[in-house]
Amino acid sequence: MSTAKPFKRILLTGAAGGLGKVLRERIKPWADVIRLSDISPIGEAQDGEEIVQCDLADKTAVHALMKDVDLVLHFGGISTENNFEAIMAANIQGTYNIYEAVHLAGVKRVIFASSNHVVGYYKTTDYINAEMPMRPDGMYGVSKCFGESLSRYYYDRFGIETVCIRIGSSFPEPINKRMMVTYFSYNDLVELLRCAAFTPRVGHTISFGVSNNPASWWDNRYASHLGFQAKDSSAAFAHKFPDSGDYPAADDITTIYQGGAFLLTGPQYKS
Amino acid sequence: MSTAKPFKRILLTGAAGGLGKVLRERIKPWADVIRLSDISPIGEAQDGEEIVQCDLADKTAVHALMKDVDLVLHFGGISTENNFEAIMAANIQGTYNIYEAVHLAGVKRVIFASSNHVVGYYKTTDYINAEMPMRPDGMYGVSKCFGESLSRYYYDRFGIETVCIRIGSSFPEPINKRMMVTYFSYNDLVELLRCAAFTPRVGHTISFGVSNNPASWWDNRYASHLGFQAKDSSAAFAHKFPDSGDYPAADDITTIYQGGAFLLTGPQYKS
Amino acid sequence: MSTAKPFKRILLTGAAGGLGKVLRERIKPWADVIRLSDISPIGEAQDGEEIVQCDLADKTAVHALMKDVDLVLHFGGISTENNFEAIMAANIQGTYNIYEAVHLAGVKRVIFASSNHVVGYYKTTDYINAEMPMRPDGMYGVSKCFGESLSRYYYDRFGIETVCIRIGSSFPEPINKRMMVTYFSYNDLVELLRCAAFTPRVGHTISFGVSNNPASWWDNRYASHLGFQAKDSSAAFAHKFPDSGDYPAADDITTIYQGGAFLLTGPQYKS
Amino acid sequence: MSTAKPFKRILLTGAAGGLGKVLRERIKPWADVIRLSDISPIGEAQDGEEIVQCDLADKTAVHALMKDVDLVLHFGGISTENNFEAIMAANIQGTYNIYEAVHLAGVKRVIFASSNHVVGYYKTTDYINAEMPMRPDGMYGVSKCFGESLSRYYYDRFGIETVCIRIGSSFPEPINKRMMVTYFSYNDLVELLRCAAFTPRVGHTISFGVSNNPASWWDNRYASHLGFQAKDSSAAFAHKFPDSGDYPAADDITTIYQGGAFLLTGPQYKS
Amino acid sequence: MSTAKPFKRILLTGAAGGLGKVLRERIKPWADVIRLSDISPIGEAQDGEEIVQCDLADKTAVHALMKDVDLVLHFGGISTENNFEAIMAANIQGTYNIYEAVHLAGVKRVIFASSNHVVGYYKTTDYINAEMPMRPDGMYGVSKCFGESLSRYYYDRFGIETVCIRIGSSFPEPINKRMMVTYFSYNDLVELLRCAAFTPRVGHTISFGVSNNPASWWDNRYASHLGFQAKDSSAAFAHKFPDSGDYPAADDITTIYQGGAFLLTGPQYKS
Amino acid sequence: MSTAKPFKRILLTGAAGGLGKVLRERIKPWADVIRLSDISPIGEAQDGEEIVQCDLADKTAVHALMKDVDLVLHFGGISTENNFEAIMAANIQGTYNIYEAVHLAGVKRVIFASSNHVVGYYKTTDYINAEMPMRPDGMYGVSKCFGESLSRYYYDRFGIETVCIRIGSSFPEPINKRMMVTYFSYNDLVELLRCAAFTPRVGHTISFGVSNNPASWWDNRYASHLGFQAKDSSAAFAHKFPDSGDYPAADDITTIYQGGAFLLTGPQYKS
Repeated sequence: MSTAKPFKRILLTGAAGGLGKVLRERIKPWADVIRLSDISPIGEAQDGEEIVQCDLADKTAVHALMKDVDLVLHFGGISTENNFEAIMAANIQGTYNIYEAVHLAGVKRVIFASSNHVVGYYKTTDYINAEMPMRPDGMYGVSKCFGESLSRYYYDRFGIETVCIRIGSSFPEPINKRMMVTYFSYNDLVELLRCAAFTPRVGHTISFGVSNNPASWWDNRYASHLGFQAKDSSAAFAHKFPDSGDYPAADDITTIYQGGAFLLTGPQYKS
Repeated sequence: MSTAKPFKRILLTGAAGGLGKVLRERIKPWADVIRLSDISPIGEAQDGEEIVQCDLADKTAVHALMKDVDLVLHFGGISTENNFEAIMAANIQGTYNIYEAVHLAGVKRVIFASSNHVVGYYKTTDYINAEMPMRPDGMYGVSKCFGESLSRYYYDRFGIETVCIRIGSSFPEPINKRMMVTYFSYNDLVELLRCAAFTPRVGHTISFGVSNNPASWWDNRYASHLGFQAKDSSAAFAHKFPDSGDYPAADDITTIYQGGAFLLTGPQYKS
Repeated sequence: MSTAKPFKRILLTGAAGGLGKVLRERIKPWADVIRLSDISPIGEAQDGEEIVQCDLADKTAVHALMKDVDLVLHFGGISTENNFEAIMAANIQGTYNIYEAVHLAGVKRVIFASSNHVVGYYKTTDYINAEMPMRPDGMYGVSKCFGESLSRYYYDRFGIETVCIRIGSSFPEPINKRMMVTYFSYNDLVELLRCAAFTPRVGHTISFGVSNNPASWWDNRYASHLGFQAKDSSAAFAHKFPDSGDYPAADDITTIYQGGAFLLTGPQYKS
Repeated sequence: MSTAKPFKRILLTGAAGGLGKVLRERIKPWADVIRLSDISPIGEAQDGEEIVQCDLADKTAVHALMKDVDLVLHFGGISTENNFEAIMAANIQGTYNIYEAVHLAGVKRVIFASSNHVVGYYKTTDYINAEMPMRPDGMYGVSKCFGESLSRYYYDRFGIETVCIRIGSSFPEPINKRMMVTYFSYNDLVELLRCAAFTPRVGHTISFGVSNNPASWWDNRYASHLGFQAKDSSAAFAHKFPDSGDYPAADDITTIYQGGAFLLTGPQYKS
Repeated sequence: MSTAKPFKRILLTGAAGGLGKVLRERIKPWADVIRLSDISPIGEAQDGEEIVQCDLADKTAVHALMKDVDLVLHFGGISTENNFEAIMAANIQGTYNIYEAVHLAGVKRVIFASSNHVVGYYKTTDYINAEMPMRPDGMYGVSKCFGESLSRYYYDRFGIETVCIRIGSSFPEPINKRMMVTYFSYNDLVELLRCAAFTPRVGHTISFGVSNNPASWWDNRYASHLGFQAKDSSAAFAHKFPDSGDYPAADDITTIYQGGAFLLTGPQYKS
Repeated sequence: MSTAKPFKRILLTGAAGGLGKVLRERIKPWADVIRLSDISPIGEAQDGEEIVQCDLADKTAVHALMKDVDLVLHFGGISTENNFEAIMAANIQGTYNIYEAVHLAGVKRVIFASSNHVVGYYKTTDYINAEMPMRPDGMYGVSKCFGESLSRYYYDRFGIETVCIRIGSSFPEPINKRMMVTYFSYNDLVELLRCAAFTPRVGHTISFGVSNNPASWWDNRYASHLGFQAKDSSAAFAHKFPDSGDYPAADDITTIYQGGAFLLTGPQYKS
């Protein structure tokens, strides 16, 4: 009948994280049941929800997580720079576990929360697209490169479709000048996910997740088939970052490279 | 005086066809006389019209058709898949006849109704432009490849300008999900023809004929000089094709390739 | 036993033509039987040969020609500029007939004698490859564009593999200065055919057929998988075309464009 | 306090010229002091202005001009075709003097008024970007090529940032059909300058200066990081240039090439 | 004195592996000491050698391994398809350990044994280069993608240079038809390593490791600065793989894709 | 009769310079008369020579120089870094004078001694071609950029053909490690000039002038029509620059960029 939702069950990993919480409500119209998973507590299941606390590094648990799932929104794992072993467990072993489970369970499509940090070592004067070589800006970024390569394999070998979303800065509003370029509003995030979920064919698509901001580093041409059209813009917040003639120092790598302050958080500070 | 129209006489071939009928009225302001031609009956000539019933495969008739013509809108021929011999007569012999007549009559410009089916074997996840190799999806598409190559020759050799329009789906509205990508409204069609007719120099230009739809397979960068800006969008019809999680089968070539159902109508079904 | 040849039966069309005669002897080691076909008389069948006189425009005859064939070397048709109707019958209808017959007979691969005249309207200062748009220099060239488009379709739709060879100037030796660039020795032609016939996968490949001459207009990168390595060079004939400071006139199109004197033989001289 | 302006002192060369007069008022909010320079008289200094009459070919004067400057808008020199010696003094020696002075004074950024005439010999059917080879259309254009190369050197060697703006036709409104493509409104000019002045990093950027006109020859992708979004369009003036079927002559180079009538003003008419 | 070798100490990981054994002797002239490491026993140290048995997944051991090293040839880890956890320990954790140790020890350059299996899902009719997206053909390939991304990061962030060598088939001779394309003789391997070790600047270079074979899938243009010129060719072994007209089945993925039989060994066969 | 030389009179500017002296003898077979010009004394005219001492900055003298000339080899001007005013007089005013004289005298072709220093700010790990943006490494390089732009204009506007040769290091042999990449033997220089002089059409061609050295930074694909095939290689001198593991410092710009030590000689050292 007309009240049927498009999917029976969507799995959202990382549901207790910043974006996970945003998505929890927004994607409800897409499936009869949203299965929410995180390594941290998520709270009570509401109507149309299932809650499964799960460590993605636990293969058996991840395989159980996938039962009766139609679509996966893989937002789980570590989302900032951290020590490599932690990132490896969560983002490398974890993402591998997701894909093996997807494969065994016969799920047809994954939306993978990749990151702009897979290309953070391009310059802020570069204009790049999804077919150019990756230039990660830390261990977090390297782990997302792994996820993109892995998902490409599962598509080429098994036909499992993935949309990798290289998420910019998805926050309520830009909080520094860099985010005037990388801002990705929650509304635009949800709209891009909607396009990624419902376009009949996506193959293996890489899309930059970014609003319609005035300045742009990313050319989304290779995701044109998704039909995503950003409606928000950082221009609405321009008054918070007034024009300044106080140029950054010539050797300030946080403004030379797209990755920004992320570049200062790499492994060298661990020892 | 100010009421003079830009052209004295425009020839519209295929005037009895689907698009021919649409254009008949719309292009009236462009010329003192519109000469309407088709192999089928067209009806009565109205004010400012001339009617010439003509088989494009008839060389003598086509040469006569061209007398005193300033501009040709070549929409004649067969516009769906058919047996090769019929397509060859109408679209290959016919288009050759048109160009030879254009050359002999000294007509300076042709607008050629090519088709998206010259690239129908690109994938629905590809984003292509007019300089990429053609990938026709049937005999109809192959005949349009011929027309594009032929018109290139007449431009390189004789300076006869052509705008090849790779028409998407030009109907009153999209009638299936594929047309959400390929929809080309009548208003946008007429506007693109206007740009093609009145841009001072067009050389040999290939333009995809498509409205400003959310999803896009075609990059019109090499036709930027035409100044065409689509005003309509298939988004207005999105409610007719609600989001669905029921993905097409992995081997359903009508959703893998841009050509859609056309791919199933090729020569193999004739024997 | 060890004396078995790779193929049971190869069909060579155009066997009475210039290159057909060269190939007749050279390809004997490749198949138990070489079936030789031409519209003109070919002479007596020798050991390991079959002779079938046949007009390629005759569909029924072409279908009969294909019986028990493993591989087609399609060198038939008209190989110089001519009136369009003759070219259409031989090269357009004829090539279509070949491919339909190939399809119905289940032949897996065709080697198609295309021509450098599909790109004759590039400049002699251009360096082009097989993915760039075609620029034919006459009706003959346009008919070869058709053959390339058609064969692409049969590969995309039915998996029938084709190697299109854009033959340069395949003569005993260069007879003018242009041929110092386009010379394609008989030995190199046979070697390229050998590569095209025996590479395990060729898909739809376009290869320029040219020897290892000092000057080059054509970049064969997209045929690298064929393993063709030219062994001859026009340099051996350089003494016949001594250096000259007598530059061609600025408007001499036969030296401006790659097609050379072919450019002067187009349809405009027929009327 | 909140009334502080972004810069202490901006130098505007060419302040008495057509665009200099426009900018004089518009850029006042950007700096405490605007230093105005020209070889011609500029009039009285108004509040927040300094006037320095100066020949850019005079090295000593140019070095003095740069004292205490934060940002340079280099609009000085000759802006139309002229005899080479005059252009060399003003645009070649002059621009060199500016950059040496910038280097010695420690100025960090220059906005250089380059011109679309550095690419005027591309065709009006071409769509070009900033990474394609330059094709100047006269001595003026050649001198601007020099300025672009020179500024590139000062960036690569000394880290002095430059935005080269290839200005289209910056006039109150389009006055011929070519300007329907090249029109660059004063508002859009000022906005592009604002982006060029205040983007934190620009490196060496080349941006086409053009409004959001329907037809376009220039792809500004490599300046995407500037965040410039044109708000005006020549479409507002379309009624002044009604559609016409009176095509230009086939050999009319002013419509074949982007440079327009500039092409007719080169050095050959001097002797 | 003149007998000094270029390096004091080179570390070769994977010294007990197939290629490690080959290299052990060949690289002796490059350093006073070759430190040989493997997880398996390597045998007795000979003159100018040090032997350290070491599991690359053991961080502490790897850091000790790097003491006083000038150059690393990282050939260790798992070199065939295997279960993911084993590959992750050896190739992901292991390569990370190597780079962290390199960084802490101040080693300036690494030569990383990557693999053609990072691009194994390109077609055998494709011609690819090092700037095109990776298409791994199994977990082994994915782990090598990780190594390439990781080494890019260490170069961008710390200036540690790496040459990634996408090794083809480095065996005494080709043992199947695919290896006629991918063959990489031991001599050519050593020569490429020599170029990678001694070119003054390599930055982060990706080079395909392949001999000068007739057919080629890989364009090494982006490694041109290394000066590597292969001297061997699989042509010497052509007689072992005679021409055959027995084409592979249309759906035989081991001949459709460059990865060959590797494609059949992925994770799906583990469960 | 058979002893006629291809040209009547070739003008060689810069005849007293390093390469001028080499060429003086080598090009004798190409013309009845070689007119030798330099600002410095050249010595006695020998048989078949004319000597004209001339400052290229002297317009009248340059125009006289061009009388009865068929071909110009423009090697004159300043060939190392120098103060800008000297470079401007010799290389900018001087080259302009040459082209105006060429235009007025009706000379059809110029071979222009450009320099690899027009691209000296590319990295030594880059592989570049003639269509990529110029990156000069000093005032000398900037002046050669000017010459390339100027000659492009004279070709586009007047049809005067030029081959710009971006000369590498043309010396008797490599004298440092950089020259192992940039070495251009005298024999190869003469052969490239021969190709540039005698190819029937060259339009405006940019060719890197470099021998067939093992390592390469320059892709000469856009000069393929010249037919130049280098016969010498720096490999013959490899023993003079033995392999060394003593890597240059990370911030040593003379090895980071292609321009080498030239980068240290720019204008900043003048003040």
